[in-house]
Amino acid sequence: LRQGFAEVIYCAGKTAEQVVAIAEKLSAQGGGNILATRATPEVYAAVLERIPDAEYHSLARTIMIRRGKQEKIGNILVLSAGTSDLPVAEEAAITAEMMGNHVERVYDTGVAGIHRLLSQTEKLRYARVIIVVAGMEGALASVVGGLVDRPVIAVPTSVGYGASFGGLAALLAMLNSCASGVSVVNIDNGFGAGYQASLINHLGEN
Amino acid sequence: LRQGFAEVIYCAGKTAEQVVAIAEKLSAQGGGNILATRATPEVYAAVLERIPDAEYHSLARTIMIRRGKQEKIGNILVLSAGTSDLPVAEEAAITAEMMGNHVERVYDTGVAGIHRLLSQTEKLRYARVIIVVAGMEGALASVVGGLVDRPVIAVPTSVGYGASFGGLAALLAMLNSCASGVSVVNIDNGFGAGYQASLINHLGEN
Amino acid sequence: LRQGFAEVIYCAGKTAEQVVAIAEKLSAQGGGNILATRATPEVYAAVLERIPDAEYHSLARTIMIRRGKQEKIGNILVLSAGTSDLPVAEEAAITAEMMGNHVERVYDTGVAGIHRLLSQTEKLRYARVIIVVAGMEGALASVVGGLVDRPVIAVPTSVGYGASFGGLAALLAMLNSCASGVSVVNIDNGFGAGYQASLINHLGEN
Amino acid sequence: LRQGFAEVIYCAGKTAEQVVAIAEKLSAQGGGNILATRATPEVYAAVLERIPDAEYHSLARTIMIRRGKQEKIGNILVLSAGTSDLPVAEEAAITAEMMGNHVERVYDTGVAGIHRLLSQTEKLRYARVIIVVAGMEGALASVVGGLVDRPVIAVPTSVGYGASFGGLAALLAMLNSCASGVSVVNIDNGFGAGYQASLINHLGEN
Amino acid sequence: LRQGFAEVIYCAGKTAEQVVAIAEKLSAQGGGNILATRATPEVYAAVLERIPDAEYHSLARTIMIRRGKQEKIGNILVLSAGTSDLPVAEEAAITAEMMGNHVERVYDTGVAGIHRLLSQTEKLRYARVIIVVAGMEGALASVVGGLVDRPVIAVPTSVGYGASFGGLAALLAMLNSCASGVSVVNIDNGFGAGYQASLINHLGEN
Amino acid sequence: LRQGFAEVIYCAGKTAEQVVAIAEKLSAQGGGNILATRATPEVYAAVLERIPDAEYHSLARTIMIRRGKQEKIGNILVLSAGTSDLPVAEEAAITAEMMGNHVERVYDTGVAGIHRLLSQTEKLRYARVIIVVAGMEGALASVVGGLVDRPVIAVPTSVGYGASFGGLAALLAMLNSCASGVSVVNIDNGFGAGYQASLINHLGEN
Amino acid sequence: LRQGFAEVIYCAGKTAEQVVAIAEKLSAQGGGNILATRATPEVYAAVLERIPDAEYHSLARTIMIRRGKQEKIGNILVLSAGTSDLPVAEEAAITAEMMGNHVERVYDTGVAGIHRLLSQTEKLRYARVIIVVAGMEGALASVVGGLVDRPVIAVPTSVGYGASFGGLAALLAMLNSCASGVSVVNIDNGFGAGYQASLINHLGEN
Amino acid sequence: LRQGFAEVIYCAGKTAEQVVAIAEKLSAQGGGNILATRATPEVYAAVLERIPDAEYHSLARTIMIRRGKQEKIGNILVLSAGTSDLPVAEEAAITAEMMGNHVERVYDTGVAGIHRLLSQTEKLRYARVIIVVAGMEGALASVVGGLVDRPVIAVPTSVGYGASFGGLAALLAMLNSCASGVSVVNIDNGFGAGYQASLINHLGEN
Ligand SMILES: Nc1ncnc2c1ncn2[C@@H]1O[C@H](COP(=O)(O)O)[C@@H](O)[C@H]1O
Ligand SMILES: Nc1ncnc2c1ncn2[C@@H]1O[C@H](COP(=O)(O)O)[C@@H](O)[C@H]1O
Ligand SMILES: Nc1ncnc2c1ncn2[C@@H]1O[C@H](COP(=O)(O)O)[C@@H](O)[C@H]1O
Ligand SMILES: Nc1ncnc2c1ncn2[C@@H]1O[C@H](COP(=O)(O)O)[C@@H](O)[C@H]1O
Ligand SMILES: [Mg+2]
Ligand SMILES: [Mg+2]
Ligand SMILES: [Mg+2]
Ligand SMILES: [Mg+2]
Ligand SMILES: [Mg+2]
Ligand SMILES: [Mg+2]
Ligand SMILES: [Mg+2]
Ligand SMILES: [Mg+2]
Repeated sequence: LRQGFAEVIYCAGKTAEQVVAIAEKLSAQGGGNILATRATPEVYAAVLERIPDAEYHSLARTIMIRRGKQEKIGNILVLSAGTSDLPVAEEAAITAEMMGNHVERVYDTGVAGIHRLLSQTEKLRYARVIIVVAGMEGALASVVGGLVDRPVIAVPTSVGYGASFGGLAALLAMLNSCASGVSVVNIDNGFGAGYQASLINHLGEN
Repeated sequence: LRQGFAEVIYCAGKTAEQVVAIAEKLSAQGGGNILATRATPEVYAAVLERIPDAEYHSLARTIMIRRGKQEKIGNILVLSAGTSDLPVAEEAAITAEMMGNHVERVYDTGVAGIHRLLSQTEKLRYARVIIVVAGMEGALASVVGGLVDRPVIAVPTSVGYGASFGGLAALLAMLNSCASGVSVVNIDNGFGAGYQASLINHLGEN
Repeated sequence: LRQGFAEVIYCAGKTAEQVVAIAEKLSAQGGGNILATRATPEVYAAVLERIPDAEYHSLARTIMIRRGKQEKIGNILVLSAGTSDLPVAEEAAITAEMMGNHVERVYDTGVAGIHRLLSQTEKLRYARVIIVVAGMEGALASVVGGLVDRPVIAVPTSVGYGASFGGLAALLAMLNSCASGVSVVNIDNGFGAGYQASLINHLGEN
Repeated sequence: LRQGFAEVIYCAGKTAEQVVAIAEKLSAQGGGNILATRATPEVYAAVLERIPDAEYHSLARTIMIRRGKQEKIGNILVLSAGTSDLPVAEEAAITAEMMGNHVERVYDTGVAGIHRLLSQTEKLRYARVIIVVAGMEGALASVVGGLVDRPVIAVPTSVGYGASFGGLAALLAMLNSCASGVSVVNIDNGFGAGYQASLINHLGEN
Repeated sequence: LRQGFAEVIYCAGKTAEQVVAIAEKLSAQGGGNILATRATPEVYAAVLERIPDAEYHSLARTIMIRRGKQEKIGNILVLSAGTSDLPVAEEAAITAEMMGNHVERVYDTGVAGIHRLLSQTEKLRYARVIIVVAGMEGALASVVGGLVDRPVIAVPTSVGYGASFGGLAALLAMLNSCASGVSVVNIDNGFGAGYQASLINHLGEN
Repeated sequence: LRQGFAEVIYCAGKTAEQVVAIAEKLSAQGGGNILATRATPEVYAAVLERIPDAEYHSLARTIMIRRGKQEKIGNILVLSAGTSDLPVAEEAAITAEMMGNHVERVYDTGVAGIHRLLSQTEKLRYARVIIVVAGMEGALASVVGGLVDRPVIAVPTSVGYGASFGGLAALLAMLNSCASGVSVVNIDNGFGAGYQASLINHLGEN
Repeated sequence: LRQGFAEVIYCAGKTAEQVVAIAEKLSAQGGGNILATRATPEVYAAVLERIPDAEYHSLARTIMIRRGKQEKIGNILVLSAGTSDLPVAEEAAITAEMMGNHVERVYDTGVAGIHRLLSQTEKLRYARVIIVVAGMEGALASVVGGLVDRPVIAVPTSVGYGASFGGLAALLAMLNSCASGVSVVNIDNGFGAGYQASLINHLGEN
Repeated sequence: LRQGFAEVIYCAGKTAEQVVAIAEKLSAQGGGNILATRATPEVYAAVLERIPDAEYHSLARTIMIRRGKQEKIGNILVLSAGTSDLPVAEEAAITAEMMGNHVERVYDTGVAGIHRLLSQTEKLRYARVIIVVAGMEGALASVVGGLVDRPVIAVPTSVGYGASFGGLAALLAMLNSCASGVSVVNIDNGFGAGYQASLINHLGEN
């Protein structure tokens, strides 16, 4: 049995019809929440016609179909460095919420203004798992990793230009973090970070 | 306060004298276990002169100085793909053990003989966190990630030749895993995987 | 004499007029089937005006002009990992069919759900040659290569994002396969895999 | 049952003791030939002490333990471009021989002297499978692929300097071959090419 | 004094107005031919309004303004591998012609059909300088370099897909050519090859 | 006239004799200090025989020949992240000192322990130019750049392993710094950073 | 307190509304100049509606809101190699001007016509800081660095094609400059160069 | 008939015995000069025993066996940037001399001291072909290419460290040269440059 908290549809490379068909089938099966990632507004429009309570988060490009009452446990903290990282940060946060986790968001805390981050120490310490979303030089993961003794999941983003090479600079920086307790997912993979954070957060429950 | 279960010395780029000095200082402070990674036999010899109960694991290149009685909680599973991946797998396993975790080892379960892995399903399901160590094409992480609903920490190794480009092939494969719940640490970074696995495993305890 | 089973036109970088001219010339020569790869709908429309029995496969982007009665021998198996890999998988399958081979398709058997693959062992064993089409981490080639003692031709696809670097991750993984008997063609080169599989499959006949 | 013609030990990353132990165990089991690749002279010396009829090919760095009478079928052609490619070419040829294939060798036929290759057309046509071993620009695979309608397995080698980047130039060239019917294995992977060639060559037999 | 045979305008990154202004100024100065490379049809339209005898080659994207009577010396041979390489090959040929050289073109002689190339030996031997234009694996440069004792200028093109990485595969292959006498210009740089070929061809005259 | 504060000899790729000859010639000319970088102990021994007051810094691998009384102006701060970065940090610091600058050193202030850095704010603010030396993920440059309004010169080091790719990870991170006022020199180029810092520091004097 | 001479808004990845809101807030605060970089004409139009004296530089894609009377000190020289480098050069020049510096521009002085550069020696010597903007091979930075004893900030641009790999060629060249006193910012980062040049230029003032 | 001026043996990857055998056979055939490149002192010692008049150039690592009286035509100029580039520059110069060309050498003319180069304009203009050898940022090729209207053959060297990536920086810079008339050979390929320069220089003679 896989996770059970939510079924996930990855929309990239699927037609609107394919997504609708999968969503309807999952919806008919009853069960938990349904989450569709990388969904365009067109895909959402098609889903909405058949599933009227489907919601859409345009920044995160996710469709959320909430089913039943879900108990949420906590606490997952999502940190992001800059405004342009928000879509990925929200994909991570929404994924974790749909899978039954309390999520705290602290955005726009890039390392160039380190005091903004340091003023959030209470939230940093309260979290069980921390997701750090950052593009460009990806330095936030190392600073956060050094401040906490909780698992940090780092998400490099493709935000940047020139020698960021589509997120490669942030990815390499995060993999080479001098702070212990940091692991990394694919560039822009907010979903993957939210999913693993949920698995970790639920460990204490079983 | 950082972790507390064990103090860690990273020996690469340090002289034997520097390592000995740090180890003695930590040892004098009392407290928990001391672990030194990437330690050559020469560094161990120097440490042994001053700390007679220091142990050495030559494959993993770790020095272990055990202090007090440590309670271990469980369960972390370390899987590795091939014989040449053992040094990295052992670095991960020893790190987790020194930080107070029960560690189960299942080695030599490369995907080219998938039935060896499938015959270990009980251990796979019993584990709370799984560390997957693999070089070459790094495919083991994806297969394991698909079999379990537990967090998987993937460690690419530099094992291979030609187009493995020093572990790059395994690293990229693991970052692109189609299985959910997989995150990745640096090439050959057994320590980092063991450390994060311990953080995750101890979440349930607090 | 080259192959003889089918003439092939590679449409990328050719104008519709150029493709039509080549197709008409080949068609006039009589002989075997004609296959055009990487054909846009516009190119097909132009061909159809002059060759009314030309067929089109929009997913695989191939034009097929069937000529005479062709004996098919078997058996080539085309496996693919995910929905987005279908265009490449179909290019491979159609190429092999047009060149006189029986082709079996087993799609959507990614390694994250290994049991779907394992439930196909009969088809795996019945095949003389196996084409494995996969993007992202490309792990399917290694798992299949370990299950069979038949030649496996691996086709990395550009499916993925971020650190897949346009198919590079899958390509490197397949080249580093720890399973014996696996060779690799260019990213997205379904044609090349289907062509070589046909050459191999026909060896037994001569 | 895997291949059965020969058991293979990959010596890289194994101690002499480990190789000897595996070789003795396989030898005791009876059965077919035993082949050890990437074996240093030291490893061979250790094996020889326990298995006196073990042979060594110092250029190919292979140990061969021949058992029973093996029927050989044909015909696999191994072509190589330059003198420095010989170790890889021999690894391929010996692997194929140990697995029950007749092997023809044509060495030193680089494309800079194309007439040497063209004077071998009889051998090219007589072969059922062709292995092409080349470093530097790897152009030989394309020329051979254009001359024959048989499967060509290309092996890039790390021979070269500067912008060959350890075999990358030859690898990329072979993957982009404009000739149909060419697939590629890892840089310097003579074993992999010989193994797949044997699988292909034996297809006609079953 | 630079070359004197022709003035050259590189249009990429310039507005139509900028190109027109430069062209008019050069034209007013009298003197030799004027060549504009990488010119879009829009740029040509703008130039034509002010310089009515300006000609356009849409494939090569060049504008040619011929002035005075130019003596041509010979002989430069431009070879290309495939249909998609024509724009680059024509840029090279036109550049050489505008600078006062006789140019012979032999197109579509890829190495996968080596006999087409070999049937052109007379032209190969008659040439003083040879420009080889090829994408994908770029093998043509090595084969030609081995057939002649004349300087060969190799132009890699961005033709290809997947692991051609925008012409990188051909570039690396040409730099690693095992044939002597081959040098290389930038990917798709037909102009640069034509220009250097002209410099070389005119050496005998001074 | 170039700088005048010190003459510099770059020893890499020069024989001991060549270095001695240059040093003697410069010394005979009188004038300012002489600095030799990348000098092995052997080179120093050879220099010492002819110039008895030559000093050696074995960590930084520099030879220093001090001449006359040099006025020093201030203030350049050299920050480094880890113990292994010291050779590069010292090359930078010594270069700046030899060129007439007061240099303050603050070592071992990696971002994983951000409070160590924050406790140095007085020194940060007192400096006119700051050199930041860091390997692995190179995050220190961004944090420092955000804390000060002075020019920061970042020096990536080759310290690290795996996906640090010889300093590439730190280099890319520093180039993508989200903090303003940061520029970057080559990997391990302590000399270049010290030299430019001196040029900047002396601007106020003229 | 950060810089004080000008507040900066980086528009990439922000909506017009977000930029307008930030600009209005900064404008209301009174204080110094406001500069917005990477601003599209649409963003400018939106800003103009609310801040009627906002100016736009379409080539540099910057919005300038000038406030109060600003004293300018000097002298920063911006050199650029080719016409296509102008947008980046202007972003650098405007940034420096908005922060209170006199800026001299010398454009179109590529190294292929070295005498144009050499005829500008007076300006080169008069400058306190020099920004060198160049794409393609980026050689201008080294030549300028060798001519002056002032800090040179090199900005590689993405101008070029083929093996320029989006500015990588120029970036690597500038990092490897054999001239002392050169540091480098990200590809196309005119802002970063102008900002650091201003920090350096103002050092003499404090 | 190939070139005829000299026979060449490339020693890398050949045993001393193989080199001696080839040298003796060529020597016995009579004919022109014999040149062996990439020859170690051991290989030379072995050759010397059999061919007593063989000479050795230890910096260029070439063996020269001069035969008969060779007419030399001119003029090839070899320029190099730094002291460490000398081995490659000498390989180029000696190759050209052995093939019957007058060679002028101008060494140590890096672009950081452009006036040294500019003081050599007479030699620059007198040359028919120019070979430019440079590592690090490889800028010399562009500057020279802009000064002359003769073909320039650029040889990038692996001299440098860090982001020179084994000569890649110089290679890319040279390929992207903004000067016309520059073509490039492989990193450190002095031989290839000397060979092509000879082909070009002899064109005027035929
Ligand atoms: N944004 C994402 N990036 C990567 N993988 C995803 C993403 N969203 C969902 N997935 C994965 O895709 C699976 C669903 O794939 P599919 O069955 O093709 O819709 C989920 O179970 C996840 O493992
Ligand atoms: N999808 C493909 N990718 C690579 N090569 C192809 C593809 N389809 C066809 N080809 C090759 O292109 C040749 C035809 O090329 P052309 O003569 O240019 O039409 C065929 O003989 C094949 O070798
Ligand atoms: N030279 C080689 N390169 C890559 N793989 C090899 C090589 N030689 C043997 N192998 C593979 O390694 C397997 C044996 O691995 P092991 O059990 O570790 O000795 C064989 O069955 C082959 O699949
Ligand atoms: N560690 C270093 N890295 C790069 N360049 C250096 C280094 N040390 C010195 N240099 C440069 O090398 C020049 C001297 O080179 P040379 O004349 O070959 O000894 C100095 O003027 C510096 O520009
Ligand atoms: Mg931590
Ligand atoms: Mg899982
Ligand atoms: Mg197999
Ligand atoms: Mg073929
Ligand atoms: Mg030739
Ligand atoms: Mg700052
Ligand atoms: Mg300077
Ligand atoms: Mg020129």
